[in-house]
Amino acid sequence: MKIIVIGATGTIGSEVVKALSLKKHEVIRASRSGDVKVNLDDAASIRAMFQKVRDVDAVVSCAGNAAFKPFADLTDADYELGLRSKLMGQLSLARLAKDHLRDGGSITLTTGVLAMHPMQGSASVSLVNAGLEGFVRAAALEMPRKLRINAVSPPWVKETMVKYGMDPTPGLASAVVAKAYVAAVEGSHQGKIIDPGRLG
Amino acid sequence: MKIIVIGATGTIGSEVVKALSLKKHEVIRASRSGDVKVNLDDAASIRAMFQKVRDVDAVVSCAGNAAFKPFADLTDADYELGLRSKLMGQLSLARLAKDHLRDGGSITLTTGVLAMHPMQGSASVSLVNAGLEGFVRAAALEMPRKLRINAVSPPWVKETMVKYGMDPTPGLASAVVAKAYVAAVEGSHQGKIIDPGRLG
Repeated sequence: MKIIVIGATGTIGSEVVKALSLKKHEVIRASRSGDVKVNLDDAASIRAMFQKVRDVDAVVSCAGNAAFKPFADLTDADYELGLRSKLMGQLSLARLAKDHLRDGGSITLTTGVLAMHPMQGSASVSLVNAGLEGFVRAAALEMPRKLRINAVSPPWVKETMVKYGMDPTPGLASAVVAKAYVAAVEGSHQGKIIDPGRLG
Repeated sequence: MKIIVIGATGTIGSEVVKALSLKKHEVIRASRSGDVKVNLDDAASIRAMFQKVRDVDAVVSCAGNAAFKPFADLTDADYELGLRSKLMGQLSLARLAKDHLRDGGSITLTTGVLAMHPMQGSASVSLVNAGLEGFVRAAALEMPRKLRINAVSPPWVKETMVKYGMDPTPGLASAVVAKAYVAAVEGSHQGKIIDPGRLG
């Protein structure tokens, strides 16, 4: 399959690129600074990407930011970041992918464990992740041309925990998380929120 | 208790006012055109409400709009309506209520069944409702001064179904839905999404 991976230089995205390439897929790496440039906050850049890269079977997003900080400290700008970037950025991608993917293609977005299992500091992130999951479940009911849409909901990733000085023991390695994206692309999931810790 | 009900003139809100009044609470009715004027889309109007009405124990929101229409027809403006009104409007209320309610007070917001049980046409509504539920679960972990925050997730309401020409048989009467709001205000729920159909 011909697959665009957005956020291809990130902790998870780079492992998704590796995992899909190992399965002999044609992988196009897209990011704000990659081979193919795209910024999910800017719908015009998503349109331009689909003009440039044609006949795509699947698009995978491992991109999008949201602010993690104490509830009392979250500002309007912090909430806007999550809404514009991780939530509506990925939603824009889904809306445009619907019109550009090949018949039977798939859209895979990224949410996260905090959607359903919040912690202190996650008010905005939990909002964004849960909202995106609500969207994915609903949009799946109306996908044309046998397109599929799903989200992967990664738990804490070992590499990220190390970066933030946390104990990585309870985390999942990004290479393991990547397998969930491969499953979403190659499988028949529709409207599902896939937990990489429960892939079996 | 002294309780502000926002959206007090609506199908559900008017029943919530009745139900709380029957329980001998002091109910202040707020809406875009009520005794106390407030528009959740406008944080300044929420601040003005809390300046005008002091020593409040609980705030209940039965307000907020979002667009219900086929996924293929949802425009940027439709998504913005839901984000600004039902999602961030109620979130603004929660953020400001946190600083204005009496110790031990409560915030009760409104989501809806489409958060977890989507149907065709609900992509934006499901996003908004699910996002708000994610926020409520997370914000509850960081509420100061023994404040509580919960959401009521109404199923389809009989009166609304009649209004839209639907068969109201599977719906719940708004007077029954109102009991869930009373439970949220008088109970000890924290970070819960309350289903009025499962109150027992």
